[in-house]
Amino acid sequence: MLDVCLLGCGGTMPLPGRWLTSLVLRCNGHSLLIDAGEGTQIAAREAGCSFKNLDTICLTHLHADHTAGLPGLLLTMGNMDRTDPVTLIGPPGTKRLLEAVKTIAPELVFPVWVTELEPNTTQTIPLGDWEITAFPVNHTVPCFGYQAQVPRAGRFDPVRAAALGIPKQLWRHLQSGECVGGFTPQQVLGAPRRGIKLVYSTDTRPAKALYRCAEGADLLICEGMYGEADKLAKAKETCHMTFQEAAKTALRSNVRELWLTHFSPSLSRPGEYLSQAAAIFPNTSLGSNGRRTTLHFTEE
Amino acid sequence: MLDVCLLGCGGTMPLPGRWLTSLVLRCNGHSLLIDAGEGTQIAAREAGCSFKNLDTICLTHLHADHTAGLPGLLLTMGNMDRTDPVTLIGPPGTKRLLEAVKTIAPELVFPVWVTELEPNTTQTIPLGDWEITAFPVNHTVPCFGYQAQVPRAGRFDPVRAAALGIPKQLWRHLQSGECVGGFTPQQVLGAPRRGIKLVYSTDTRPAKALYRCAEGADLLICEGMYGEADKLAKAKETCHMTFQEAAKTALRSNVRELWLTHFSPSLSRPGEYLSQAAAIFPNTSLGSNGRRTTLHFTEE
Repeated sequence: MLDVCLLGCGGTMPLPGRWLTSLVLRCNGHSLLIDAGEGTQIAAREAGCSFKNLDTICLTHLHADHTAGLPGLLLTMGNMDRTDPVTLIGPPGTKRLLEAVKTIAPELVFPVWVTELEPNTTQTIPLGDWEITAFPVNHTVPCFGYQAQVPRAGRFDPVRAAALGIPKQLWRHLQSGECVGGFTPQQVLGAPRRGIKLVYSTDTRPAKALYRCAEGADLLICEGMYGEADKLAKAKETCHMTFQEAAKTALRSNVRELWLTHFSPSLSRPGEYLSQAAAIFPNTSLGSNGRRTTLHFTEE
Repeated sequence: MLDVCLLGCGGTMPLPGRWLTSLVLRCNGHSLLIDAGEGTQIAAREAGCSFKNLDTICLTHLHADHTAGLPGLLLTMGNMDRTDPVTLIGPPGTKRLLEAVKTIAPELVFPVWVTELEPNTTQTIPLGDWEITAFPVNHTVPCFGYQAQVPRAGRFDPVRAAALGIPKQLWRHLQSGECVGGFTPQQVLGAPRRGIKLVYSTDTRPAKALYRCAEGADLLICEGMYGEADKLAKAKETCHMTFQEAAKTALRSNVRELWLTHFSPSLSRPGEYLSQAAAIFPNTSLGSNGRRTTLHFTEE
């Protein structure tokens, strides 16, 4: 299962009552954060998300509303006696950003390792039992969306295992994907089953890699900077999306559910425009501070 | 008069419901901010403090809980179509800090001028009708307290002016401090009257320059990192103060009023320790998010 907590739903600047958009994902005891704008550490605390097992921070792009919370966040993690390293994944320029973060917060007591993504390239980063795929999107600066995927092996076939004469004490090893006693998992497992897929994408225009990576996702958390359909020209100019465009993306990618986020500070009542999006993709709802869900394997 | 708004009362890290300590002062249409930790722009918005006339930002020291809000704050000021420059005043290292801030927020559309203070030196910076004095305090890194002073000229003596044969149409010029028609203000004004004095000091141990600059202040806003008297050893170790030490400072400096601020995150109920401070200096109270007052000239 994959625990999901959207810490905020704002874009551009944090507002009283609306934290900037960032996402915490937890899977098998490991925690990952995507984006860290100003106030993210407060939003996380408010939402009850611990930083204890946070070992990976992904940045969509290097605009300050997605990065300026890093000095405070890393310092607070250090104040909790952390010594384990954190991996910081982001677009080209992330190393330089980290140097600036360390100038503001020079007292970091644990290592931060940086992985700079290749421009315009879809890249998968394995995280043990799950994986993250960064894909290029279309903003005013190099920007990536992120897909989190929890794969699921095929069903174990005890009839086949018995027919092959595999001793029962080896079964659980094969079930968990290990080769053992001269046998391979492929001999006793069916085709991989549907896993869990979540896609998070801000700031971007509708983009091919987004359509492709979001295909069939359990949950798409997508920017909707503007609620008003007549702000399409503005959305194009600033490389953002309207609610309707986000809904069309969800529809085209056959996702199961869409959360809208990254609202413009000018969009004080996003709920007024939700119906316009839901008319296109019914299972649309609004992101909010600390909104949570848990995604489970759905196939038997 | 001097408008005072304490934006928050926390130290070390921002918490839900407790913004980091920073102060907005306004005098004659000009606005000044002291310290800008993470979330300061949200705290200011929540308190209804506009950034429109903010032309000076002072930093006590370069710990991130006093500086990490700068990228977001400056960006938001830029988003409001600001083109006027801002002066950033702080300890040695402030220029380097600003470079880091600009790496995180490269889109600044107005100039930021830096004044680095001389180490271990008391320095006065005139701001038109009022002035700021930075004075060195005692922390783990170079740190300054700030005194804001609104001077007040002596009373105009019409009897003397008439006796000197000064034409009445020149009186208001002399009253406002101008030399005119061969006459000087000194000829018709009494001794300078009591003005307004406010002192803000975090993070520090009790310090001689603090005693001296706070002498007779209308309001001392002073750190009290620890409420518990038995945290004195910890306060000494981390170069902070207990509530009792802040109260002793207020008493020794003959201030009129003391606000405690910069509470440790571990100090979840500062009110429990207020009486210990008030036993030493009765006119002590607690800082809080958006706490305001207006200081007026008190002498007739």
